[in-house]
Amino acid sequence: MRRIVGEDPDFSSLGEEMWRMVKGLYPICRSITGEGLRETLRVIGEHIPLRTRELPTGKRVLDWTIPMEWNVREAFVENSRGERVIDFEDHNLHLLGYSHPLDAKMGLAELKKHLHTLPDHPDWIPYRTSYYDDNWGFCLSQNQLEGLPEDSYHVRIDTTLEEGHLSYGECIFPGEVEDEVLLSCHACHPSMCNDNLSGIALTTALGKLLSEMPSRRFTYHLLFAPATIGAIAWLSENLDRVGRVRHGLVVTCVGDPGHMTYKRSRRGTARIDRAVELILRESGEEYEVMDFSPWGYDERQYCSPGFDMEVGSLTRSSHGRYPEYHTSADDLDLVRPEHLSDSLRKYLAVIDVLENDRKYLNTVARGEPQLGRRGLYRAVGGGTSEERMLSLLWVLNLSDGDYGLMDIAKRSGLPFRVIREAAGELLKTDLLREI
Amino acid sequence: MRRIVGEDPDFSSLGEEMWRMVKGLYPICRSITGEGLRETLRVIGEHIPLRTRELPTGKRVLDWTIPMEWNVREAFVENSRGERVIDFEDHNLHLLGYSHPLDAKMGLAELKKHLHTLPDHPDWIPYRTSYYDDNWGFCLSQNQLEGLPEDSYHVRIDTTLEEGHLSYGECIFPGEVEDEVLLSCHACHPSMCNDNLSGIALTTALGKLLSEMPSRRFTYHLLFAPATIGAIAWLSENLDRVGRVRHGLVVTCVGDPGHMTYKRSRRGTARIDRAVELILRESGEEYEVMDFSPWGYDERQYCSPGFDMEVGSLTRSSHGRYPEYHTSADDLDLVRPEHLSDSLRKYLAVIDVLENDRKYLNTVARGEPQLGRRGLYRAVGGGTSEERMLSLLWVLNLSDGDYGLMDIAKRSGLPFRVIREAAGELLKTDLLREI
Amino acid sequence: MRRIVGEDPDFSSLGEEMWRMVKGLYPICRSITGEGLRETLRVIGEHIPLRTRELPTGKRVLDWTIPMEWNVREAFVENSRGERVIDFEDHNLHLLGYSHPLDAKMGLAELKKHLHTLPDHPDWIPYRTSYYDDNWGFCLSQNQLEGLPEDSYHVRIDTTLEEGHLSYGECIFPGEVEDEVLLSCHACHPSMCNDNLSGIALTTALGKLLSEMPSRRFTYHLLFAPATIGAIAWLSENLDRVGRVRHGLVVTCVGDPGHMTYKRSRRGTARIDRAVELILRESGEEYEVMDFSPWGYDERQYCSPGFDMEVGSLTRSSHGRYPEYHTSADDLDLVRPEHLSDSLRKYLAVIDVLENDRKYLNTVARGEPQLGRRGLYRAVGGGTSEERMLSLLWVLNLSDGDYGLMDIAKRSGLPFRVIREAAGELLKTDLLREI
Repeated sequence: MRRIVGEDPDFSSLGEEMWRMVKGLYPICRSITGEGLRETLRVIGEHIPLRTRELPTGKRVLDWTIPMEWNVREAFVENSRGERVIDFEDHNLHLLGYSHPLDAKMGLAELKKHLHTLPDHPDWIPYRTSYYDDNWGFCLSQNQLEGLPEDSYHVRIDTTLEEGHLSYGECIFPGEVEDEVLLSCHACHPSMCNDNLSGIALTTALGKLLSEMPSRRFTYHLLFAPATIGAIAWLSENLDRVGRVRHGLVVTCVGDPGHMTYKRSRRGTARIDRAVELILRESGEEYEVMDFSPWGYDERQYCSPGFDMEVGSLTRSSHGRYPEYHTSADDLDLVRPEHLSDSLRKYLAVIDVLENDRKYLNTVARGEPQLGRRGLYRAVGGGTSEERMLSLLWVLNLSDGDYGLMDIAKRSGLPFRVIREAAGELLKTDLLREI
Repeated sequence: MRRIVGEDPDFSSLGEEMWRMVKGLYPICRSITGEGLRETLRVIGEHIPLRTRELPTGKRVLDWTIPMEWNVREAFVENSRGERVIDFEDHNLHLLGYSHPLDAKMGLAELKKHLHTLPDHPDWIPYRTSYYDDNWGFCLSQNQLEGLPEDSYHVRIDTTLEEGHLSYGECIFPGEVEDEVLLSCHACHPSMCNDNLSGIALTTALGKLLSEMPSRRFTYHLLFAPATIGAIAWLSENLDRVGRVRHGLVVTCVGDPGHMTYKRSRRGTARIDRAVELILRESGEEYEVMDFSPWGYDERQYCSPGFDMEVGSLTRSSHGRYPEYHTSADDLDLVRPEHLSDSLRKYLAVIDVLENDRKYLNTVARGEPQLGRRGLYRAVGGGTSEERMLSLLWVLNLSDGDYGLMDIAKRSGLPFRVIREAAGELLKTDLLREI
Repeated sequence: MRRIVGEDPDFSSLGEEMWRMVKGLYPICRSITGEGLRETLRVIGEHIPLRTRELPTGKRVLDWTIPMEWNVREAFVENSRGERVIDFEDHNLHLLGYSHPLDAKMGLAELKKHLHTLPDHPDWIPYRTSYYDDNWGFCLSQNQLEGLPEDSYHVRIDTTLEEGHLSYGECIFPGEVEDEVLLSCHACHPSMCNDNLSGIALTTALGKLLSEMPSRRFTYHLLFAPATIGAIAWLSENLDRVGRVRHGLVVTCVGDPGHMTYKRSRRGTARIDRAVELILRESGEEYEVMDFSPWGYDERQYCSPGFDMEVGSLTRSSHGRYPEYHTSADDLDLVRPEHLSDSLRKYLAVIDVLENDRKYLNTVARGEPQLGRRGLYRAVGGGTSEERMLSLLWVLNLSDGDYGLMDIAKRSGLPFRVIREAAGELLKTDLLREI
């Protein structure tokens, strides 16, 4: 059996480490292009060997085109007394993403047409973008908005929208086979912690642990890219190799206090679906499984019908289903080290299943083999069964060439790890062999 | 997308119109043969182009034989004072269907052997027949029976059982394809409104609406025939063309206040089954789905193993499951215009599904197409999704050649109509094409 | 239709008879070899024609080897005053099964290493064995143990472990076909009534009833063998004919007051599984169905992957799931005649299904046949249906070559017996024929 490095790592330290990474990346203003995105990839590259790609503006990627690169120098709204009443310096969510440059004066009524708030959460700033529609705007709290008097406002948006590049980073850990496990997270969101600095930090931590594995069956492919256009760009650049992806997960929203949520692949019964559901069931904790829908994150692209990849998404509170989602309240208080480390533990358990889900053959298929003379049976019979004994019998009974270890775990109700250990023990005898 | 005429018709007027038709047909004494049946077909023919068929007594139809034609001139029981204590003139349910002629005197004891009542509903007259067993009898209320003193009774049944014909009527609206949708209702029941004047009225109304459709994909075949022997006769006469029937519904009991009930075809997962269940689920109202059983109405014939047609039965309170069933209480008070129109609305929605359940192909299958530049995406991103956007994404994601629109509606949880409209919108772009 | 003898036998007498057999066998000290096992087979042979087989020590059977034969002359522990504080004479559970001979003196501490108790049930003696690990020991109640003072104890175990034989008995009732129904019970347990004297008595009673059947479709193969090694020995000796076993049940724990429990075959949807589940569902009583697991009794062997036989286990309280299991409390009070007879009734009903589950063909498949002119339809129509009429219609509707009578019973919800009777009635007409 392949031992997963980090099966019993110091999850507490790893949780702290991931949280510190989230904290470090929090202030940076990211978007689907630009320097903030580049800086984020550079930070990730301090932890794992990241190869960064840059695709030029105007390049066709599948049905899309790489947009202009967007960068912000400053952006604010000033009242007639020269006070900045809304300022990008205070919080980078204040600026509508991809706002075009502007320097203008206007009354409150005109200004309001470009202001976005969340009336239901009057203290929070919403996150809004306008990537593909030429526009400008500011986001602010409802309270802030209500405090704005009639006045002549000076709106200054010093952004650039120029020919440039879209950036993404990837990191590949080769395994015994070319078949890949894709771990994909979007890296384009500005100052929000759960969505998706948590995903960036967890994927990075996974990368470090994977690099420490003495051997890997699968090749692991980590991708940090802008949502939608970034995943589309990566797919477009890798049409000749996306077929290698056997299993995949979109990593996002993994640091909040909610229970685990799994969104199935479009296929619904892919091996990744069964592996994740097995691990969540075994956890004994509350969790939720949702069917695929073409709404959410980059599983939308991986599960488009022309690819139909076996990619699901394992999150805590999922896309759009927690109040802080896409607001300034998705901050360093929402995401906690213990939630990050718990999520990491689940991801590792899933990888354990993927790595070790093999089929074996019981060489003494007719009747039970005599475990006693092989030292595998307790000496005094007549009492009740226990987990280890049962796991040996289950592996023997179902290792007929049809059942893999994941199937055996599911049918027996025993934890995958116990089944894997039983198979490992039996492989040392003459009773089980690889097929 | 094919627009169903009457998708938004004036259901209120249609309900009134159907109810008036029920009222007009109510007094007629129908049976599986005879002048009442002919008169009923004639009335239907005033609304839709009906072709009437007459099959002679003695003709073999499948395992059966067309019986003698039965007609009633008068039938009564007179007491010794010459008072008619039971009279066919008062209610045509009073006479046991297919009673043979009789003119005799007898005491109460002898008479009672031929009287049928409903002790549990002492005011109601039961509906009883004896088509294939030479017999006579009267049906009356339990109260009426208990009021009959010992006396010498004169029983007079002036019926004829003679060589004649069995009549049925059919009406065909050709479509683009020869494949047929069968709408079948039995037309043999005497004065009872829900079973089955409601079915006759609704089928007639459907016929009028179908005739107004600018184009029809399917050919619609409406059948008004006596129960059992009539359906068997029709099948026997159409052995070379019943294979054209792709989908069908037996229309009965559609005017009472109960919730909708669907009885599945023998196959259980036929397209008609899935279409009806989708529409009932979407209605948000209470409903019931029952598995097929070989008991009920003419689905028994259509779903006999040698035909095994994809025919279910969509009713309100179903066969035998409401107290007024097959009694004089199944009258003009039980059936109401609003129930008739609600049933009609469901039937039309089912026809909408059958007409429009097509498969399409997403032409940009790899990755999501960029909806924005085609004017299909809202401009400012970051908020939550809404039904229209979701419906476009679902149609694109599942239009891979395997899924039809009904499957997409089911998997997405969105109403069929919304999915159909999304497909219609996408067909106007380069993103979707027919296959 | 084949009539099961004993379909309406005197179950009350049969219950008493089985209970008397349990009582007679109770005192005998059985093990997986030895004279107690032989004596038990001899007693069974007084009721049904049993052929006994003897396999010599050292013979290889599948992955196992026939062990030494074990017999007990006496075994006790004596205190320093010469009083026997534990004595095999009092209860044969006192001696650890397969204890080797010993004559030794020892203090309480040394003795205790070889004593087994049940602290949770301080009055009960546990059942323990050590077949394949050279050992000795005594089992006693916790109260007894706590009453043992420090002393010098004389331990005497006068057993023999010598070259000998393993015995099993089988009894075959030939049927019209060579295909077999296996009824297997383990016969190796010492003085415990539910596990498994109840199984021995019920299997014997079934054997008597089967012998009285005027004709049998299947060949019935009854096996009385030691658990595990006995079943393995039988399989090993019959490799060329185990393929004949089409259906089978492991008979054990059939006399306690618990509800019926069925443990499915490894396949899970074998005909025996469907037959037993149908009968339990029809019983209207509480019952439980468990999936197969490779723990329990000899279904472990029959359902090992190299055989994968269609064998389940029908019990009352199942293996290890009642407190008295494998203790001295599994005695003549736990097992009662009425539970034995109720279990027998279920087994007979299952055999009824197996014998009569045939497919027939409706010869008038297009439309319903006219039952009336064949005397199968009630004369006056219009009322509601009843079971007999429905059963005729169901058999006709589903007899298309795909459905057998068991399927028809399940789909119709009517009792198998009613469906079988309907088929029998139809077979007398021209409407149904065997295929």
